[in-house]
Amino acid sequence: MAHSTLFNSFFPLTQPWLRSFSLDNGFSLKMGFSLKTSWSRSFSLKTMLKGESFTWDQVLGIAIAEDEAQQLSGLNGYLDKVRICNRRYEARSMFMPFILEDEIVGYVHPGFVEHLRKFPNVFTLTKDRGYGDHGADFLTLHPSLVSPTDRTEAVGDAITCLDEGIIPGIRNELYPVTSSYGKPVFFSLERAAAPYFGIKAYGVHMNGYVNKNGEKHLWIGKRSNSKPTYPGMLDHLVAGGLPYGISCKENILKECKEEAGIPITISDTVVPAGAVSYMEIDGLRYKRDVLFCFDLQLPDGFIPANEDGEVESFKLFPVPQVANIIRRTEFFKPNCSLVIIDFLFRHGYISPDEQGYLQLLQGLRSGDCS
Amino acid sequence: MAHSTLFNSFFPLTQPWLRSFSLDNGFSLKMGFSLKTSWSRSFSLKTMLKGESFTWDQVLGIAIAEDEAQQLSGLNGYLDKVRICNRRYEARSMFMPFILEDEIVGYVHPGFVEHLRKFPNVFTLTKDRGYGDHGADFLTLHPSLVSPTDRTEAVGDAITCLDEGIIPGIRNELYPVTSSYGKPVFFSLERAAAPYFGIKAYGVHMNGYVNKNGEKHLWIGKRSNSKPTYPGMLDHLVAGGLPYGISCKENILKECKEEAGIPITISDTVVPAGAVSYMEIDGLRYKRDVLFCFDLQLPDGFIPANEDGEVESFKLFPVPQVANIIRRTEFFKPNCSLVIIDFLFRHGYISPDEQGYLQLLQGLRSGDCS
Repeated sequence: MAHSTLFNSFFPLTQPWLRSFSLDNGFSLKMGFSLKTSWSRSFSLKTMLKGESFTWDQVLGIAIAEDEAQQLSGLNGYLDKVRICNRRYEARSMFMPFILEDEIVGYVHPGFVEHLRKFPNVFTLTKDRGYGDHGADFLTLHPSLVSPTDRTEAVGDAITCLDEGIIPGIRNELYPVTSSYGKPVFFSLERAAAPYFGIKAYGVHMNGYVNKNGEKHLWIGKRSNSKPTYPGMLDHLVAGGLPYGISCKENILKECKEEAGIPITISDTVVPAGAVSYMEIDGLRYKRDVLFCFDLQLPDGFIPANEDGEVESFKLFPVPQVANIIRRTEFFKPNCSLVIIDFLFRHGYISPDEQGYLQLLQGLRSGDCS
Repeated sequence: MAHSTLFNSFFPLTQPWLRSFSLDNGFSLKMGFSLKTSWSRSFSLKTMLKGESFTWDQVLGIAIAEDEAQQLSGLNGYLDKVRICNRRYEARSMFMPFILEDEIVGYVHPGFVEHLRKFPNVFTLTKDRGYGDHGADFLTLHPSLVSPTDRTEAVGDAITCLDEGIIPGIRNELYPVTSSYGKPVFFSLERAAAPYFGIKAYGVHMNGYVNKNGEKHLWIGKRSNSKPTYPGMLDHLVAGGLPYGISCKENILKECKEEAGIPITISDTVVPAGAVSYMEIDGLRYKRDVLFCFDLQLPDGFIPANEDGEVESFKLFPVPQVANIIRRTEFFKPNCSLVIIDFLFRHGYISPDEQGYLQLLQGLRSGDCS
């Protein structure tokens, strides 16, 4: 029990110590910290996923707590977040390639392939032609499906006919299926099905910051408790998946308006700043995500206002406090941590003289970033 | 002849076209551009290496020329610079690992190993233990050399005894030999010998910029014609190798003073912003470089002044003009191009909606960035 929680009742401690705890899927990590505070609620991704919530006051308590161990623990708190986003990566050999026109576009688990066998006019299993591990089969589409439109329709119909619960949370939003970003789109696939087919999914993520007396502050959002994924957890200001047929720039402007009420006069100054990537295996799902990162400097007086009901509220924190929340907790939706760590790198909040700098920098693109 | 030059006398052209040209080592690339200018001098890395020089006026001419092909050529001009820094990478299978304490610390060419055979008390050749390609030997140090001091001394003596010209340009500056940055240092090696042993070399590189009416400008240096390497070529503001025993921060402050006369009151605000890496093979040399990138915002009125005689002069250019110089020419010292492209990414001068964005982003860390 003591090992399953991030914070427990041993506070206050004046010496750094290492605590290990487990996530739901058995992934375990270590975290070093020391907080001089009497606040002692227990939180972890495990409790979050079970619906236990936290308040802004609790976030603030952790953000501002002194940290004597900071120098000792170094970048470990950040590295843990990279590991969480890439959990069960070692299970990738279980998956077989999903191939179209000689390009690997995804990876599928044999357990999921079993469900696809019911649609022999849509999906074809073929013997290995040198892809993947020795002797593995690979999945492709039936040769009669040639045009993107035909493929989109046939696969879409099959997904609709799958037994309920096999692919939960259908969104009726299409993602492009391609080998790399900007390459030809072979067909379009329901967003919720993307990780079951192991296709790469792209998103746009934006940090919104304010310069107050020379000190940068980040706007942090708290997700609505009614969100189906990661309810009540923390987000950076704006994020969204990249559906088929919309550019990164158009999408980020749209999300700026919907998620944070940022008018085009401000959002139009958004700065593209790179990308992060990760790959995570969770049961039959193989997530291969690439997130395009954006920065937007907001006027000091601007207050974000959510328009689509997906964010409960926003708060502004000095960047070092956001860094503390990232390092010390799992309050952030996991992939948002990567985007904020990328911000910390680019804006000088992480020093190359800290142990593990290059390892962490590389870790931000652990997935196939193409 | 026409194919060996970057610019020739076909100007002015109003249509974009592709021109291929060769570098000294046979590496060839393609570049698309169209300049509406009557200026027509011929330049390439080949001519630069032969000592043909260019002037600031010529640089400016290219920087401000209209470019009708910009939308067509996209990021190719940048991708070419990544390829130049990673040239002859495909020849790496020729090299055998240099191993210390079960860690690969470098790679050596059999042609160079021949010279090391004269020192059997220093270097030991051993049969493959699973490193490198099938059946390859690997190089290590004689088992009697255990302490870093003994190793440094013995290898240093051997290098001194090598025939003249085998390792040209001895600098009497020591680089740490390690598997990754921040890991234990096995010994220290003369800087000029680093690529012959294929050890990783680290450097600190800084872009100095000025904000003028909301538009960022970069200070560009022109290397002294008396520099042994890349004389007369362009540099970003400050750069230096990272010798043994000095931190990145200390080193960048030192180089700021020596290379650009930047006082500590200004340089102390330098912002670490990530790293780039590349690997290049040139004859017996295997360069594996990691460059820590820094940004420094300078006051509008500040004029850099070189103090160590390594820079001929400096000029300030709006960032889009610097981007043009990078894309259209090979005037920059090759690895400085990567550091400036990294700046362009982080400051929003390259859009994720441009074809090849992720490929270029990944290309900036083509080397072992650890």
